[in-house]
Amino acid sequence: MGGDSAPAVVVAGVIQAIKRFPEVDFRLFGDETAIHSLLTDHTDLMGRIEVIHTDEKVAPDDKPSNALRRGTKTSMRMAINDVLDGNAHAVISGGNTGALMAISKFVLRTLPGVDRPAISAIMPSQTGPVVMLDMGANLECTAENLFQFAVMGAAFYRAALGGKQAKVGILNIGHEEAKGHAYLREAADMIRQSGIAAHYHGFVEGVDLSRGTVQVVVTDGFTGNVALKVAEGVAKFVSGELKRELKNGIISRIGAVLSLRALKRVRQRFNPSLYNGGMLVGLNGIVIKSHGSADAEGFANAIAVARGAVAGRINQQIIAELESFYRNSAPLLEHAAQ
Amino acid sequence: MGGDSAPAVVVAGVIQAIKRFPEVDFRLFGDETAIHSLLTDHTDLMGRIEVIHTDEKVAPDDKPSNALRRGTKTSMRMAINDVLDGNAHAVISGGNTGALMAISKFVLRTLPGVDRPAISAIMPSQTGPVVMLDMGANLECTAENLFQFAVMGAAFYRAALGGKQAKVGILNIGHEEAKGHAYLREAADMIRQSGIAAHYHGFVEGVDLSRGTVQVVVTDGFTGNVALKVAEGVAKFVSGELKRELKNGIISRIGAVLSLRALKRVRQRFNPSLYNGGMLVGLNGIVIKSHGSADAEGFANAIAVARGAVAGRINQQIIAELESFYRNSAPLLEHAAQ
Repeated sequence: MGGDSAPAVVVAGVIQAIKRFPEVDFRLFGDETAIHSLLTDHTDLMGRIEVIHTDEKVAPDDKPSNALRRGTKTSMRMAINDVLDGNAHAVISGGNTGALMAISKFVLRTLPGVDRPAISAIMPSQTGPVVMLDMGANLECTAENLFQFAVMGAAFYRAALGGKQAKVGILNIGHEEAKGHAYLREAADMIRQSGIAAHYHGFVEGVDLSRGTVQVVVTDGFTGNVALKVAEGVAKFVSGELKRELKNGIISRIGAVLSLRALKRVRQRFNPSLYNGGMLVGLNGIVIKSHGSADAEGFANAIAVARGAVAGRINQQIIAELESFYRNSAPLLEHAAQ
Repeated sequence: MGGDSAPAVVVAGVIQAIKRFPEVDFRLFGDETAIHSLLTDHTDLMGRIEVIHTDEKVAPDDKPSNALRRGTKTSMRMAINDVLDGNAHAVISGGNTGALMAISKFVLRTLPGVDRPAISAIMPSQTGPVVMLDMGANLECTAENLFQFAVMGAAFYRAALGGKQAKVGILNIGHEEAKGHAYLREAADMIRQSGIAAHYHGFVEGVDLSRGTVQVVVTDGFTGNVALKVAEGVAKFVSGELKRELKNGIISRIGAVLSLRALKRVRQRFNPSLYNGGMLVGLNGIVIKSHGSADAEGFANAIAVARGAVAGRINQQIIAELESFYRNSAPLLEHAAQ
C-alpha cells in the first residue's frame, strides 16, 4: 500500500516482474478488494500471487516512532514480519522510508558485526550504475560506520547489479589524503586493512558521482541525502530547460521532432525507474525501498534488485567480510586503543 | 597569475570589464613582461591599467600554510595587501582558493561580529541565480556560523546580483522542522530573531537548489562543496549524453542542426562563466574568487561581482546586521546560557 499510486503501481510492477522472473512468487499485503480488482485481467497469474488482507497502513508522513506504534497489522509491518517468519525471502516497499527502516530494524534486527544499517541508492553515471550510501538513516557517522557501509555497499553492488566487483570510494571535498574530516581518513585506513582493500579507490569528490570513477560511494546520511537530491534536481532542471527551449520556435521544433529518438534515449538513460530499488543494507533480512513516485517498470526493477540480493546471498557475504575483518584486525584495534 | 590560463585569461577578462565598467580601474600583479605582451594591442587602455611586477606566485597545489610562508612578494599576497593599503577596493583571483582564504584572513582579518569567513558560490536555478555558502572553508559549523552565513549570503545576493532581497533557506534532508541536525534548528531560531527574519524560508532540500526555491542556501563547508560538485558533474553528464546521442545517426544529426539554437541557449544557460565570481564573505575587504577554469567572459563576470559588492557596500551591511542582532539578542543569548 506504499507509494504515490499504490496499490495500482505495485500490482502493475508485480505483473511485469512475474513475467520476467518465472521462479519468483509474490505475497501482497494490503486492501484485498483494491488489489483483486487490479488483478481481474490476470487470473492466469493468480497461482503465483497471494493476497494477504489488511485495512491498516503506515502513512507517508508517519514518524518512524508512530509507524512502529501502529502495531502489527499495517501492510508494511505484516510484509516485514513475513520475512522474519521465513515466508518471504525479501520485502519490497514503496512506502515511508523512515518507517520502513525503523520497523525493519525492530523486527529483523541488524546483521552480526553491523552497528548501523544504511539506506543505499542506485544512480546513473558515465560508466554505469553507482551505489551510494547512506542516504539518510544515519546523520552522523563514525569511521567504523563508514567502513561497514563500504563493505555492505560493495556486497550490494555485486549481488544486485550483475556480480561485478565494485571500486569503492569515500565522498570527500578533494582527492588528496589530507582533505576533509579526520574520521574519513580513519575509515579509509580500516578499508585498507579489510578484505575489500584491493577494491578501494580512495577519496572521491561530488563530481565523481556522475563520472562513475567508482561504483560504490560511501558517505554519511546527511551528505548522501543532499547529494542524491541535488543530482535529481539538476538532471530534471537541465532536461527540462532543453525541452522548453526546443519547443521555442518552429525551426527548433522541427529539429526536436527529428532529434526525438536521441532525446528519448537520453531521457531513458536518466529514467529514475532504471535506478529504482535501494536496499536497506545491514539488516537481518532483505528489505528493498522502491521510490514513492516509481512507475510499474520502476517497481519491477526494485523487485529485480531484491531478487539479485537474495540470489547473491548478500547478507552472508557481508557477515563473512566483517567477521574476517574483526578477527584479523582485533589485535590492531586493541593496540590502537592502548 | 592565478587560474588555469593565467595571465592570458585574466588580462582578456580585464579588457572586457574595462569596456563594460568605465568607472573601474585595474591594478594587475604578476609577471610584467607576460602581462604587457598581452596588452600591446590595447595601449588606449593603459591609462586605466597599472601593472605591478612580481616574479613570485602561489602554486595551485600550495597548502594554505605554505602559501602564507611564501611571504609578501607573491602576486596573490601583493594584490590582497593592496586592498589592505586602500589602493584597491577589491581583489579578484583565479588562484588557489585555500591560499586565497588563508592569506586574506591573515592580511585583512574578519569583519567585526563574524566568527568564520565563508566561501560563497553562485549557481543557476529555475528562478535565477542562487548563492550557496559555505563551499569548503569550514568543514564543521556551529548554529552561529550558519546564522552568520545567512546574513552574509543575503547581503552578497543583494549587493552582487542586482539589489533584490533574497529568500534564505538552510540546507537539510527534509523540509519538516524536526529533520536533520539539532544545530540546524538552532541556526533557524537565530535567523528568526534577526533582521533577515522576514526573508527566512525554512529548511530546503538538495532538489531546491535547482528549483530556486530560495536565493541563498546556507550549509556547512563539507556539504556545500559536495553539493556544488555533484551539481557541476550532473549538468555536464546530462548535456554530454545529449550531445553524444544527437551525433548518433543521420536523422538525429539533421535534428541537432535544426535544434542548434535551442541547444545553444541551454548550454548558455548553464555556462559556468555566467555564474563566476564567488565572494569570500566575512573578511574585512572584498575578495572574489574566479573559477580556475573560467574564460575571459567568466573573469569579467567575477569583476562585475566585485564591482557590485563594492557599490552595494556589502561589508557595511553585514556589520550593521550582525551588530543589531547581537545588541538585541544579547539578553536572550545570556538568558539561554544560564
